[in-house]
Amino acid sequence: MAASSYDFAPSAGEWITAPDVPLEQLKERFVDVEIPAVPASFEAYREALRDDLLPYLVNVASPRFIGHMTSALPEFVPEMSRWMAQLNQNVVKIETSKALTLLERQVLAKLHRLFFDRPLSAYRDIVQDPEHVFGVFASGGSTANIAALWCARNRRLIDAGIGKQDLASIGAFEAIRRLGYSGAAIVASPLAHYSIRKAVAVMGLGEQNLVLLEQDAGRRVSLGDLEQKLRWCEEHRKLVIAIVAVAGATETGTIDPLADMARIAAKRAIPFHVDAAWGGAFIFSDRHRYLLDGISLADSITFCAHKQMFSAQGGSICLFRDTNVAHCASVHADYQARRGSFDMGQYTLEGSRPAASLLVHAILHVLSKQGLAWLVDNSMEKVAHFKRLLASSSGFELIGEPQTNIVNYRYIPVALRGYGPMYSESESRKIDEAVEAIQQEQFLRGRSFVSRTRISDGGRKIAVFRVVLSNPLITHDDLRAVLEDQENLAASVVEGRTQTEIYRSAG
Amino acid sequence: MAASSYDFAPSAGEWITAPDVPLEQLKERFVDVEIPAVPASFEAYREALRDDLLPYLVNVASPRFIGHMTSALPEFVPEMSRWMAQLNQNVVKIETSKALTLLERQVLAKLHRLFFDRPLSAYRDIVQDPEHVFGVFASGGSTANIAALWCARNRRLIDAGIGKQDLASIGAFEAIRRLGYSGAAIVASPLAHYSIRKAVAVMGLGEQNLVLLEQDAGRRVSLGDLEQKLRWCEEHRKLVIAIVAVAGATETGTIDPLADMARIAAKRAIPFHVDAAWGGAFIFSDRHRYLLDGISLADSITFCAHKQMFSAQGGSICLFRDTNVAHCASVHADYQARRGSFDMGQYTLEGSRPAASLLVHAILHVLSKQGLAWLVDNSMEKVAHFKRLLASSSGFELIGEPQTNIVNYRYIPVALRGYGPMYSESESRKIDEAVEAIQQEQFLRGRSFVSRTRISDGGRKIAVFRVVLSNPLITHDDLRAVLEDQENLAASVVEGRTQTEIYRSAG
Repeated sequence: MAASSYDFAPSAGEWITAPDVPLEQLKERFVDVEIPAVPASFEAYREALRDDLLPYLVNVASPRFIGHMTSALPEFVPEMSRWMAQLNQNVVKIETSKALTLLERQVLAKLHRLFFDRPLSAYRDIVQDPEHVFGVFASGGSTANIAALWCARNRRLIDAGIGKQDLASIGAFEAIRRLGYSGAAIVASPLAHYSIRKAVAVMGLGEQNLVLLEQDAGRRVSLGDLEQKLRWCEEHRKLVIAIVAVAGATETGTIDPLADMARIAAKRAIPFHVDAAWGGAFIFSDRHRYLLDGISLADSITFCAHKQMFSAQGGSICLFRDTNVAHCASVHADYQARRGSFDMGQYTLEGSRPAASLLVHAILHVLSKQGLAWLVDNSMEKVAHFKRLLASSSGFELIGEPQTNIVNYRYIPVALRGYGPMYSESESRKIDEAVEAIQQEQFLRGRSFVSRTRISDGGRKIAVFRVVLSNPLITHDDLRAVLEDQENLAASVVEGRTQTEIYRSAG
Repeated sequence: MAASSYDFAPSAGEWITAPDVPLEQLKERFVDVEIPAVPASFEAYREALRDDLLPYLVNVASPRFIGHMTSALPEFVPEMSRWMAQLNQNVVKIETSKALTLLERQVLAKLHRLFFDRPLSAYRDIVQDPEHVFGVFASGGSTANIAALWCARNRRLIDAGIGKQDLASIGAFEAIRRLGYSGAAIVASPLAHYSIRKAVAVMGLGEQNLVLLEQDAGRRVSLGDLEQKLRWCEEHRKLVIAIVAVAGATETGTIDPLADMARIAAKRAIPFHVDAAWGGAFIFSDRHRYLLDGISLADSITFCAHKQMFSAQGGSICLFRDTNVAHCASVHADYQARRGSFDMGQYTLEGSRPAASLLVHAILHVLSKQGLAWLVDNSMEKVAHFKRLLASSSGFELIGEPQTNIVNYRYIPVALRGYGPMYSESESRKIDEAVEAIQQEQFLRGRSFVSRTRISDGGRKIAVFRVVLSNPLITHDDLRAVLEDQENLAASVVEGRTQTEIYRSAG
C-alpha cells in the first residue's frame, strides 16, 4: 500500500509563495481597517481572494516546502473540516454534541491504549464512564502542554497532602508555601518546546523555576544531570512539579531517554510529561516504535494529530496515564460542566471548541494504523536519502545525527571549507550569517523552503538549516532541487557571484 | 435587507437529536478502542457516519434548539472552513502563513477600531507594524480570557516597578512577594464565565483570590461593592491584577456597567477586562450599541466570532486597547516567534493554530456591518416576542428583565401558582425540581431544546430555563412550539398526567 491510495492534496503548481510582491509591498495591501458597510456576494469575495490572497500564502503542501511541520493533507481532511463546520457541534458539553462527546471519549481511549499499551479489556467498562478521563483535546501542542503541567502541578500538591478543595480555595502558590517549599520547579529537556516557557510564565513562575538539563552528545537529556538537578531541588526545598521530556524535539527531532527518565521520575513520585507532539506518530510504526520506548511510563503525553497524523490545524491531545488524574484540575459551572457529567469543559483548558476528534476518528479509520505507519517509514527513508545528498555535497555539513525525520545541516562558505570542524569565533559567525542569509533569501524567492534555528554545538549556539521530511509527496528529486536552490542562492548572497555568472557556470 | 439574502444553513429536518436510542444505549456504540489495522475508503466511512453518528448529534441549527449559543451558520462558513483546511496555513508564524499573518493583523485592527472607537488615521502607520499588537486570536473565549489575565497580571507588575526581564526571570509570584504584597486578587462580576476560574486556577491562584462582586437588582455589578472591595484589597495589600466585567453574561445575558467600572479601574491603574464573548456583537448595531457604552475604555476585550458573528467554532479574540501591552507577556524562540518578527506565536497562548481570521474576514465582507447589525436587531425582536408569550402563559414566569438576547424563565407547577412571588423553602425546591425534570426530559425527547442553569434570586440560587435567541432561523411559531413542548413535558413529568391524557386534552 502506498501513499497514493489515499490521495494527498496536491501542491497548487510550482510555487511555494509568489515572489513578485516583496513583503514590504505586500503589507500595503492589508492596511484598510474599515469594516464593509454593506453585504457582498460570497462568490465575488472568494474570487477576489483567489487573486489577492492565495498567491501570497505559503504552499505548505509543496514537496519543496520542507522547512516546517505543516504539510500536504489527505484530500478527505478538508471535506471533513467542512462537515465539522456544517454540523457546528460544540464539544464543550454533551448538550451541544451528544454522540460526538461519546466519540471523542472513544478516540481518546483508542490513543490512550496505543500509547500506554494496555489490554483491550482494561477499557471495556470505562470507555464511556465519565469518571474516567483518558485525556483532553486542545487546540494545539502548546495548550496541551499547559494542560499537562496544570494537572501535574495540582496532582503533585494533592499528593503532598493538600486536599483538592483546599487547593481550589487557596491556590497552588499558597499551597506550595504552606507545605514549606521555598518554590517550585519544572525540570525539562533543553530542547523543550517554547510552550513550556509559556506554561511557566502563565503559571506565575519564571525562568529561574525552569531547570533546563544538560544534553549528551546525541542531544538527549543527560541522566546524570537529571539526577543531580533533582537532588539540588530537594536540597533547596523546591517542589518539582514535573519532569518534561521531548519526543521529537521541534528543532532537532531528538527523543529523550524516556524509559530512564520515567524511572527516575517515578522513584520520586514526580509527574513525568512527554511532549510527543511531533514524534508521537512513530508509535504507529512497527519498525520505528522502538524510538519511543518508555513512553507508556509517562504520566501525560502531548500529541498533535495535525502534525504526523495529517489532520487539520487544531487537533492536539494531552493524554493522562491515570484516568482519574484530570479531576485534580477540574472546574465546574452551574449551566454546564457539572460535576459527574459527560461535559468535557470541566477538564479542558478551553471551553467551546470544535470537534477535532471527528477528524482524528476519520484518519484512524481511513488511513488506519497501516497507512500511518507507512507515512512514518516512508519519511525515514527520505531522511536516509537526504543524508546521502548532504554527504556527497561539498558545501553542506550535517549537524548531529537525525534520530527522527527532522534534519539539521548548514552551509559552509567556500573560503572556510577544509578548516573545520573547529572554527574561530569570527569564522563561526561567518557561517551563521551565511546560513541566515541563504534561508531568508530562500523564503523571499519562494522556489523552495527550509527553516532555520540556532542549536547548541560544543558550547556555542550555531545557526542551522532545519528540514522536516514528513510530507509524503516529497521525492528524491525534490530533495536534490532544494539543495540546488540553496547552492544557487549561496552563490549570490554568500559567495557574491551575480545571477548571470551562476547561470553561465550552470549552463 | 433580510437574513435570507445570505442563506443560513437550514436545519436538517425536524429533529434536534434522534430520541430512538437513549444515551445509556448510545454509549454502547462507542466503546471499541481498537485502531483499524487496514485502510478504508473515505466514501464508505462517511456513509457509515451518516447512519451511526449524524442522527445522534445535536441539530444546533434548528430554530427549536434555542438553549445554547451554537446556532445555524451562513452557508459560506463551512465552505470557507474547507478552504482553511485545504490551505493548511499555520498562523503561528509568517513562514507558514505569509499574507494570512498580514490579514490576521488587519482583521484584528478592524475589530480594534470597532471596539475602541478610534479614527481611521490612528491605524494608518501601524496596521502592519509588528511592534503594534491589536490583539490575539484564541481558540475560544476561555483561552482569550486566560490570555487577557496573563497579560494584565504582567502589565500590573511591570507598572509596579518590576522590569520585564526580571519578571520573566523570577516569575509573577516572586515579583508579587518582592513588591511587598500579601497576595493577588482578581475582582470580577459574579456572572463571570467559569473560564475566569480556570484562569485563576492555572495562574496558581485560588478561589480566595477571586473576589466576586455583589450585584444590583438588574444582576449587574454593584459599583458601591466594587469600590468597597478594592479598598479592602488595598488595605490588605492584595495586588489587584484585573477587574473583570461581563458584557453578555453566559447565563443571563446581562451587561455590567462598563463605563463606571472602567472609570473606577482607571483611577487605580488596574487593568480592566471586559468579557464580551457573547455581547460584543451588539457593537455592530446602531440601535443596540448603547448597551456596550464604555467598552472602548476597557484595557482588554474578549470577543467570540463563533458566537454572534456566526463563524465556525474556534474563532475567539482578545483585543488590547494599548497596542504595546502584549509585549508584557511575550515569549520567544530561536526557530520562530523571534523578537521583532511578524510571528504571532510570540504573543499567543497557543502555538500552531488554524487561520480563524480568514473566516472572520469573510464574514466581515459577506455579511458586513449591515448584516451583523440586522442579526442583532432581529434577535432582540424575538426577545420581545418571547417575553409576550411568557406573559400570556399561566405556567411560565420570566426571571429578571433580559438586557440582551438571553432570557431566563421557569415553570411553576399548577399547585403552586398564585402563591408567588415569595415561596417557602420546600416550594422553591419543588419549582427547581420541576425546571430540572422538564429540561432533562426535553433534551432526551429531542423535539426542542432550552438549557438550564441556577442563578441568584433574592439571596437564593434558583433553577431557571435559559434561552439564547440568536439563530436567525427562529420564527414566532418556533418560540410558541418550544413553550408548548415544555408545557406538555411538564404535564407528564411534573403534573403526573400520562401522555394519553395530554393528547386527549390537546385534541
